[in-house]
Amino acid sequence: MAHINTNYKKLPGSYLFSTIGKKVREYQEKNPEAKIIRLGIGDVTQPIAPEIITALHKAVDEMGNPETFKGYAPDLGYEFLRSVIAKKDFIERGCDISPDEIFVSDGAKCDCGNIQEIFSLDNRVAVCDPVYPVYVDSNVMAGRTGEYDPAKECFNDVIYMPCLKENGFTPELPSEVPDLIYLCFPNNPTGAVIHKTELQKWVDYANEHGSIILYDAAYEAYISEDDVPHSIYECNGAKGCAIEFRSFSKTAGFTGLRLGFTVIPKELKAGGEALWPLWARRHGTKYNGAPYIVQKAGEAVYSENGRKQVREQIAYYMQNAGIILDGLAAAGYEVSGGKNAPYIWLKTPDDMTGWQFFDYLLEKAGVVGTPGSGFGPHGEHYFRLTAFGNRENTIEAIERIKRL
Amino acid sequence: MAHINTNYKKLPGSYLFSTIGKKVREYQEKNPEAKIIRLGIGDVTQPIAPEIITALHKAVDEMGNPETFKGYAPDLGYEFLRSVIAKKDFIERGCDISPDEIFVSDGAKCDCGNIQEIFSLDNRVAVCDPVYPVYVDSNVMAGRTGEYDPAKECFNDVIYMPCLKENGFTPELPSEVPDLIYLCFPNNPTGAVIHKTELQKWVDYANEHGSIILYDAAYEAYISEDDVPHSIYECNGAKGCAIEFRSFSKTAGFTGLRLGFTVIPKELKAGGEALWPLWARRHGTKYNGAPYIVQKAGEAVYSENGRKQVREQIAYYMQNAGIILDGLAAAGYEVSGGKNAPYIWLKTPDDMTGWQFFDYLLEKAGVVGTPGSGFGPHGEHYFRLTAFGNRENTIEAIERIKRL
Repeated sequence: MAHINTNYKKLPGSYLFSTIGKKVREYQEKNPEAKIIRLGIGDVTQPIAPEIITALHKAVDEMGNPETFKGYAPDLGYEFLRSVIAKKDFIERGCDISPDEIFVSDGAKCDCGNIQEIFSLDNRVAVCDPVYPVYVDSNVMAGRTGEYDPAKECFNDVIYMPCLKENGFTPELPSEVPDLIYLCFPNNPTGAVIHKTELQKWVDYANEHGSIILYDAAYEAYISEDDVPHSIYECNGAKGCAIEFRSFSKTAGFTGLRLGFTVIPKELKAGGEALWPLWARRHGTKYNGAPYIVQKAGEAVYSENGRKQVREQIAYYMQNAGIILDGLAAAGYEVSGGKNAPYIWLKTPDDMTGWQFFDYLLEKAGVVGTPGSGFGPHGEHYFRLTAFGNRENTIEAIERIKRL
Repeated sequence: MAHINTNYKKLPGSYLFSTIGKKVREYQEKNPEAKIIRLGIGDVTQPIAPEIITALHKAVDEMGNPETFKGYAPDLGYEFLRSVIAKKDFIERGCDISPDEIFVSDGAKCDCGNIQEIFSLDNRVAVCDPVYPVYVDSNVMAGRTGEYDPAKECFNDVIYMPCLKENGFTPELPSEVPDLIYLCFPNNPTGAVIHKTELQKWVDYANEHGSIILYDAAYEAYISEDDVPHSIYECNGAKGCAIEFRSFSKTAGFTGLRLGFTVIPKELKAGGEALWPLWARRHGTKYNGAPYIVQKAGEAVYSENGRKQVREQIAYYMQNAGIILDGLAAAGYEVSGGKNAPYIWLKTPDDMTGWQFFDYLLEKAGVVGTPGSGFGPHGEHYFRLTAFGNRENTIEAIERIKRL
């Protein structure tokens, strides 16, 4: 008789953003007149930039022509995309990453979720707390986290690295050595960044202990300060200890187009075994590539016009971030993030829990945010707002919150 | 120290089609003048149909307009696509499948590869032999197959169900009861089909023993005979024991667009536990949806014009299949398949192994096919050709083979 993977039963609830979506739909059904403003899920609102739309149309036409039609993509992704990524995102920043070390995919979420598969089930995982829930959830499903302790709201075999106001929302090196270390900077949800000298300490630590850093740089395009690394490969020795994830979702508004990539240096090893061939095997066996038309859209992001247009979009969102930061600070909230990231992290007022504040904000102001506890136990009493709304809604949301 | 998932080391080689791609590239480099005809990997050659191209352009324009821009897709896929799938592919065939039981994805390969995750690692897997390699490979990676026995070219803990000339290339019910049974009809690679009364026996067997059938119907659009089921849900009781995978790749030429779906009935349980919530959790946590523009393209496949156009493409490929079947039979080859499937399965001449015949055909005729042994030990001494070439190349390939 078939049986399920019982690890799934350890997950304490549905996926965070599915839960939020459901709560908001239910509220809207009960209050059809309510004009809800969504600053919860990190979804963009600006349309795809004109240069990219042009590239998409062109690629669609190619798909309709027998001379230019494209079937299955190459395993790692099209060379035209991997080579421009290598050049613009890495070589030009002094990182020695070659096109063959880049695996194009349909997004960083999938890659972040699937990467754990190539590692031993015995490996011990460390995560920032709070952090993007996919890292922990995907390891729970695989059976790498032990049991859930409802009292602590923790999994017993996960090393949680608290990111608190006291440490500037960046973790300290763990005393117990993890095998796999998930880092996400600029951070989702806190919007915190890590400076290069600090990140170098993590790289040195990982190299010293044989740990692998799984570095999620999905928000690197939002970095505005100089000494904040865009890639972990800006650190010395990172090619020997780190995998990096990148996304087009927040860089170019591709949440609905789906494109990302993962960098695995050829020299990277775990316990003496190269990781590149394993990910290549997974990519070839359980995945079939991002659509050609979307890879062409990705290429257009790096063109002169494309780059200019997506930078304008990012600037627009970051102006939203400023409006939220300043507005909430003026209203007496304790806020951080929002300078090198599209996320604003705020302390809930009156010691409310994250979900209490979620309900309060939805019911009293019609604004949707994300409870910090959804990102980990040390996110409790915090709340995330995103800068991805349009200007009018962002201003309106902050006005409503100020009036509370 | 981090360590790898050592199950990956049990895989005897690279992914079959990656290996073929590499061999062909190397041959082409050494013989730049050779005009190679690829009838190996099952990739289509006809461009995307005009009705679908129009839908794609329209959807691309929507993505460029702030009023119609789409971000993250709903977890299960857009309702417009799921409802037309439910209606046209299931309800109209008498299968009671609702839109909420359909999970839209970027392809059947990913879903077939990932589905095993929601089952216990202790579950015993049965596969047709030969068959599409993803079923076994993905279970090897997960650690569900035991060790590889090089002498038998088998994994010790997998139940191989021989599909031979003697049984019409359809398996017999296994004496040892599997927990998970992968069936693929019309079959890849043999092109064999299963008739409804036969498939009903499998459904009854699975219901009797509590097994789950993982039914890959990626080639259902190629069925030309009446009593061959398009969906396993045409059988009584299948909703209690079967998951079905569907693909747009071969139905509408989407190998480079990426779209498929998986059907999990709400009532389906394994060991008393519902499977729908588990796959929903996986879908929500480790996947982020197929692109909106591709889902709109999928919708267009079901429109009146879209349907007409893709049926013409399928008819074109099936005429190729006829040319290959007839040509090879005339040349004295023992052939099967090609009537309800785009694959022709032939016995290698002179007792050659599949790889020997691969090299022979590539070097002597410049034709690429797929060695049957790549699909399982009982595929040895067989060879797969596909009908997905264009007409001119297909005719030329058969002429070249006839001249050998």
